Amino acid sequence: MKEFDWIKSFLAPLVGKEGLNLEDDAALYTPPAGQDLILTKDTLVEGVHFLEGEYGADTAQRLLAVNLSDLAAKGARPVGYLLSTAWPKHLNASSLTDCMRDFAQGLANIQSAYNFKLFGGDTVRIDGPMTISATLLGGVPSGAMVRRSGAELGDIVWASGNIGDAHLGLMVALQNDDLKAYMPSSEEAHYWEESFRFPVPRLSFVDSLRLYANACADISDGVFSEALHIANASNLRIELFLSCVPLSEASQKWCLAGDEEERRMRLSSAGDDYELLFTAPSKHSHAIQDAAKAIGLRVTKIGRVTEGSGLNCVGMNGQPVAITKHGYSH
Amino acid sequence: MKEFDWIKSFLAPLVGKEGLNLEDDAALYTPPAGQDLILTKDTLVEGVHFLEGEYGADTAQRLLAVNLSDLAAKGARPVGYLLSTAWPKHLNASSLTDCMRDFAQGLANIQSAYNFKLFGGDTVRIDGPMTISATLLGGVPSGAMVRRSGAELGDIVWASGNIGDAHLGLMVALQNDDLKAYMPSSEEAHYWEESFRFPVPRLSFVDSLRLYANACADISDGVFSEALHIANASNLRIELFLSCVPLSEASQKWCLAGDEEERRMRLSSAGDDYELLFTAPSKHSHAIQDAAKAIGLRVTKIGRVTEGSGLNCVGMNGQPVAITKHGYSH
Repeated sequence: MKEFDWIKSFLAPLVGKEGLNLEDDAALYTPPAGQDLILTKDTLVEGVHFLEGEYGADTAQRLLAVNLSDLAAKGARPVGYLLSTAWPKHLNASSLTDCMRDFAQGLANIQSAYNFKLFGGDTVRIDGPMTISATLLGGVPSGAMVRRSGAELGDIVWASGNIGDAHLGLMVALQNDDLKAYMPSSEEAHYWEESFRFPVPRLSFVDSLRLYANACADISDGVFSEALHIANASNLRIELFLSCVPLSEASQKWCLAGDEEERRMRLSSAGDDYELLFTAPSKHSHAIQDAAKAIGLRVTKIGRVTEGSGLNCVGMNGQPVAITKHGYSH
Repeated sequence: MKEFDWIKSFLAPLVGKEGLNLEDDAALYTPPAGQDLILTKDTLVEGVHFLEGEYGADTAQRLLAVNLSDLAAKGARPVGYLLSTAWPKHLNASSLTDCMRDFAQGLANIQSAYNFKLFGGDTVRIDGPMTISATLLGGVPSGAMVRRSGAELGDIVWASGNIGDAHLGLMVALQNDDLKAYMPSSEEAHYWEESFRFPVPRLSFVDSLRLYANACADISDGVFSEALHIANASNLRIELFLSCVPLSEASQKWCLAGDEEERRMRLSSAGDDYELLFTAPSKHSHAIQDAAKAIGLRVTKIGRVTEGSGLNCVGMNGQPVAITKHGYSH
């Protein structure tokens, strides 16, 4: 299986007209009038950002989902993407073909779920871990991008979905001893692992985000880390209430089975949630809740924007807790 | 040296306003009216696309140059880029900082030479070879992109610059035995090696290309390979004259020191030239030569577009030569 075969057999069906049948050196995109382009590029390395040896659909979906999550946080809808894949040399011809077929299926799944196309990219072999990178193009109406730096004094801080499930799912996937001692039910373990394996980019909320939010980031590196980024970029302080960080029933149960505060801190700094962390004026709170309810998305108030700088986390007993680890530094 | 330090110390000075100070999840680009976007993404792997252990300015320049060459072939000027770097884990903190400083200097050199900015990207560590990827955005006036598929019957086929110098430069860099037996002068060896190390994207010719050319590709995988791509994409046949493939004096001398035809074939299939291979109606021949002369660029007629399909190479004695290797398949 050589580069041209991979392109012709597996990638060609995924290509939009912008990709010029993958026959050219570059893609051609004519931006519609009145649209700003949002661009994001994330790289995943085998054994760091996805599990070793997982060369198929799950990894392809993860690559697109984490990039889509960046677009969602900016209020943007995806338009297309460029893809680079470095396939490990240790894969023999037949395994490589199987992996490529499965990987392309994962790309197809996400493309059709979120309605965007492949524009181009390249393929190489690597004598090392599989390394994949996608550059996504998204569109927002001119001037409507939601920035990290837009938080305003008095804003409410919100989180979408549940925090920490993905982290516990990674512990399940890695058969981590901590979690084995806890002995989750098979339903809980399955639920967590799926949360880790299949992050859901919150693209269904982008219209509301553009309407109501002043600032947003997606939670890739943990709630604390992203909140600190928003606070710093906005030259303000964020106060978070640990007791308000939204957890699933399963994760709530896990927290209560140990030192609740310590475990909630761990889940809030772990990352890989790919939920939205956003700030909005309090006058929009009802509208935000209604809009989220309409699409079946949980949204939770977890803090507020105050004067000052940095991050303050209020613990379970109402006292500030020191944050020793803002997030996971890849 | 962690991700945030690399970004703040070395990348921040390279960022355009579109990069939002690298403080956001994504970049924001407002395309000017009347412009099409040209997008290209190329990945380089240590030991495959650049020499092992070369983590500094040369490699950074190579990464941008090979992507810029793709834009040049489409008649586009660069606007900005997203960059992903996967730094090898074996580099200790101090070497890593040195490499990062040097790498960023290479980026700065190319950015200022061709007038474009960094928009964003990401950084990871890898337990394997350094792997770097850039996505370049270029602009052309609406509808003016030069495609691979535009060749027309009767077009002249042209090549810019000299072919094969980069290949011989790679042989010098690798201390290849073939070349050692030939014993080039130190000037020749230096000239070849520089040609390999510092490909020059032919951006100075893009206006002429848009004016006169029907089809173009940049020569990354060898003259034969790229000519075949143009022929196939255009549903026509290309006939190339081996004796016309432009060589530097040094490379010409090397060819004459062995089997000239075999050596010319080798240089024409080797790749890494990053010259332009383009087709244009014969009525534009004078204008093309004048335009090239004005910017000090050598351009040479090397063939023609005929009826049929595929590629025909006419050898030194006027007879067709079988092409066994269209190019280097990475």
